[in-house]
Amino acid sequence: MYSLLQRLFPICRSITGDGVRETLAVMKAIIPPLKIKEIPSGTKVFDWTVPDEWNVRDAYVRNESGERVIDFKKSNLHLVGYSTPFEGFMTLKELIPHLYTLPDQPDWIPYVTSYYERNWGFCLSHRQFSEMKDETYFVKIDSSLEPGHLTYGELLIEGETDREILLSTNICHPSMANNELSGPVVTTFLAKYLLERVKKPHYTYRIIFIPETIGSIAYLSMHHNYLKKRTIAGYTVTCVGDRGKFSYLKTRRENTLVDRVTLHVLKHKAKNSGIYDFLKRGSDEMQYCSPGIDLPVGSLMRTKYHEYPEYHTSADNLAFVSPKSLDESLEMYKLCLDALEKNRIYKNTVLCEPQLGRRGLYHQISTKENIQKNYAVL
Amino acid sequence: MYSLLQRLFPICRSITGDGVRETLAVMKAIIPPLKIKEIPSGTKVFDWTVPDEWNVRDAYVRNESGERVIDFKKSNLHLVGYSTPFEGFMTLKELIPHLYTLPDQPDWIPYVTSYYERNWGFCLSHRQFSEMKDETYFVKIDSSLEPGHLTYGELLIEGETDREILLSTNICHPSMANNELSGPVVTTFLAKYLLERVKKPHYTYRIIFIPETIGSIAYLSMHHNYLKKRTIAGYTVTCVGDRGKFSYLKTRRENTLVDRVTLHVLKHKAKNSGIYDFLKRGSDEMQYCSPGIDLPVGSLMRTKYHEYPEYHTSADNLAFVSPKSLDESLEMYKLCLDALEKNRIYKNTVLCEPQLGRRGLYHQISTKENIQKNYAVL
Amino acid sequence: MYSLLQRLFPICRSITGDGVRETLAVMKAIIPPLKIKEIPSGTKVFDWTVPDEWNVRDAYVRNESGERVIDFKKSNLHLVGYSTPFEGFMTLKELIPHLYTLPDQPDWIPYVTSYYERNWGFCLSHRQFSEMKDETYFVKIDSSLEPGHLTYGELLIEGETDREILLSTNICHPSMANNELSGPVVTTFLAKYLLERVKKPHYTYRIIFIPETIGSIAYLSMHHNYLKKRTIAGYTVTCVGDRGKFSYLKTRRENTLVDRVTLHVLKHKAKNSGIYDFLKRGSDEMQYCSPGIDLPVGSLMRTKYHEYPEYHTSADNLAFVSPKSLDESLEMYKLCLDALEKNRIYKNTVLCEPQLGRRGLYHQISTKENIQKNYAVL
Repeated sequence: MYSLLQRLFPICRSITGDGVRETLAVMKAIIPPLKIKEIPSGTKVFDWTVPDEWNVRDAYVRNESGERVIDFKKSNLHLVGYSTPFEGFMTLKELIPHLYTLPDQPDWIPYVTSYYERNWGFCLSHRQFSEMKDETYFVKIDSSLEPGHLTYGELLIEGETDREILLSTNICHPSMANNELSGPVVTTFLAKYLLERVKKPHYTYRIIFIPETIGSIAYLSMHHNYLKKRTIAGYTVTCVGDRGKFSYLKTRRENTLVDRVTLHVLKHKAKNSGIYDFLKRGSDEMQYCSPGIDLPVGSLMRTKYHEYPEYHTSADNLAFVSPKSLDESLEMYKLCLDALEKNRIYKNTVLCEPQLGRRGLYHQISTKENIQKNYAVL
Repeated sequence: MYSLLQRLFPICRSITGDGVRETLAVMKAIIPPLKIKEIPSGTKVFDWTVPDEWNVRDAYVRNESGERVIDFKKSNLHLVGYSTPFEGFMTLKELIPHLYTLPDQPDWIPYVTSYYERNWGFCLSHRQFSEMKDETYFVKIDSSLEPGHLTYGELLIEGETDREILLSTNICHPSMANNELSGPVVTTFLAKYLLERVKKPHYTYRIIFIPETIGSIAYLSMHHNYLKKRTIAGYTVTCVGDRGKFSYLKTRRENTLVDRVTLHVLKHKAKNSGIYDFLKRGSDEMQYCSPGIDLPVGSLMRTKYHEYPEYHTSADNLAFVSPKSLDESLEMYKLCLDALEKNRIYKNTVLCEPQLGRRGLYHQISTKENIQKNYAVL
Repeated sequence: MYSLLQRLFPICRSITGDGVRETLAVMKAIIPPLKIKEIPSGTKVFDWTVPDEWNVRDAYVRNESGERVIDFKKSNLHLVGYSTPFEGFMTLKELIPHLYTLPDQPDWIPYVTSYYERNWGFCLSHRQFSEMKDETYFVKIDSSLEPGHLTYGELLIEGETDREILLSTNICHPSMANNELSGPVVTTFLAKYLLERVKKPHYTYRIIFIPETIGSIAYLSMHHNYLKKRTIAGYTVTCVGDRGKFSYLKTRRENTLVDRVTLHVLKHKAKNSGIYDFLKRGSDEMQYCSPGIDLPVGSLMRTKYHEYPEYHTSADNLAFVSPKSLDESLEMYKLCLDALEKNRIYKNTVLCEPQLGRRGLYHQISTKENIQKNYAVL
């Protein structure tokens, strides 16, 4: 899993674009039945519209000495996501409204996007910014923002019944490791595990790799009636690569099957896990659990998004996640799925106590408990 | 409110009669849409019958010196409510079975009635009684007890919906201030407040001024099916003028909307309020909540009837209540009604999260929380 | 009750056979409407089959001196229940696999059965076993195990309604006093009490005297649909003769009427009673409460089976039970049945408060509480 994460890390992903396509192609090599699907820009999806597709070839801010003081090629975090094409000379004063830094975390580049309002900007460390002189800069953003597609991956693994378990994870984040490459990476290996089972699973698994928010909304706008009839449990898989303790964000209804199963597994396998109720939601479970959609989807994480300082910065890097953490997370998800798979209500087919004796399941001679064990003495 | 209370205090009210009509006429001057209605004596109302109408012109006990030792004109509490006409000479011994005193509260005149059995009597302070000599007294009760009407007031304030909130209070008590003039006085001003609102209230308000027990039973016998369909909450307004803490008597079902709303308001606005469950009922909520009627009617009071020594005596007088207490009670009732008015369940009209950004309700640029506030530093 | 228990003690009962018939005949003399019924061997009853009928004339192990070292005539516990006929010479070593003792309770004979696998054996005290020499023994079991019948008793006492209370007790145990003669003995007198009531009971009582497990299964296979429609409560009556505290084993659903009634009675009449939940079940309540049968049947006992050392041994003898204990148990069952009988929901036939005054149920003159009691002073 860690190798896959390393392989995917440098790709510039966003909610649309070739970075998403490349990411999904790498995953398809591991789980070949994965289907890659596209929704055209402009498609109405509930209250939203699928935006134009964004792609970047190059982007930089060059100083008077011809030096690239901010360079997209060094880190794709340097460019504000969905920046429009731009080219021109600017004074530092003119440039500042387009620059984003984190004064409290002066060595880290923040992650900033402007999906639904046309804009452009650069992100840089506060230290780097402090060194910028009051001179004239040449700004170049060689991007395109044009009608295209929103791309997502979908994998259906048929089980014995058509009742489904949903796994959903995001493929829209550029070079950040925990949030969010750990999610799609662990989900890919969970899919592999399910595909390689000797025995068909009891439930059907629907596994989707989508951009956050717009992706789940678009997916639900096409499938929510179908999903509502069939989905018995689900997870948004996110933030599963860091070294922190496990945590679980409950579904809106708080006591659905997935809540009971996950809390049961955590209780026995991950002492001192954090438990969040739905008021702390923040990822696609917001859409899945929303009123009228009402899918029972929780989120099993390690350290929750927003809860660690490296979140949405360049410090959420390859060193921030560990192979061991990814393994443990995969294992914990397997335990949850196994618990869901094994959770059955057995129904008696005979009335009254069955006659166990004639099936060799009960002693034939009825005695007090202390007789048999004293045979030895005799 | 205190002036109104002073104005109404001397009137001789009972469950029927001209005192009730006069009282309602004074209120109608303040809340003109109040309708005054009458039900004829003899009308069957569930298990009860509307009694004959009672009116008193004069009543006294005169000693041999021609002195009125007990005089209805000094306090209408001196005459047992619903005393039949009587005139005659009696020894003290013959008179005693018709006299009522409170030996434990020797300066107070008790309040006694005999609505449903024809009888007559006088109430006096125990001290006054102790001074009565063993002589012959002339007793005169110039009352009438004849077919007439039960009179009550009704005010309907239309809201946006036909679902109703019921306010009910008693106008059957003679000269007592807390129980019961505070109830109708606060209710009158609550009605005034509702009538003077600029915006129509959400709920329709049904406000009734009735004699206790027989009044609510008579009213329910005519309207209970209608009320059951529409009433979402209600109060019997009583004992709201004394200086004690607030208390609330819960509905029979204990967890209806009015219970939740009132306990919520009290929790935040009147610490250490007393809470009574329905077993402690004693006023018209008995009828409203009775099995088969099942209206959700509680009672928000200050010190509950029966729970203060002055209750049903001449000590429940104008000094026992205060303008401030009346004001606070009015305010508390307004808070409860406002909470009822504002209690709504909003329903989403779109599925999934609405796109707040394009409605100017969400930042267009998605960043970590600490970026924007540091713009100033830049 | 103790005399009846003494009378029944020596009879060799089992799940079938003449001992059961004799036992039921003795009971019928006390409660003549008792009906004695039979089900043929080989009848399929749910997952079970009614076994062949077993009867014993004699059984012993004789040593070389011609002495009966183990003798069924001394105690019917000496013979393993349902022992097949056998006759032959055996060394001690050959005999040992057919002998059952309790090394931890060396003076007591255990109670052993082999109903559903053809076998034979003897039970004896460990002390008696220790004295057996290594010689040749003559073994004789003069029993028969042939198609016949399973015999049970049934008594229906009609009440005002056809809703039923079930009492069930076992008549399959040989010479043991608490488990199980106390059960049928107390049940017989409970039946007598119900039959002798002057007034018909409200509920119909179904009282059955059956062999454990196979008896209740057979009975249910014939009647379960009927019982399910009518049974509102029931008990398996067992272990009610010892000197221990009362205990109650709850129904599977834990909060049925019989649970609430019995716990209520115990709370008020038998402090410190033991309460067992259904996981501790062990007698016919297992069948009555089983999924799909779902009758609300609990068990009110003194010391529960398995919970006292004398259980299923010769020490569960006439001295182990007492007349006083039997009486108390009968009384406790009567209290429970009375509570069930008296448990009614009264429905108002008038709306609002009824007018109690005109029925002489309320004072005609309404005063403060302290007036009346001071009349004396006047």
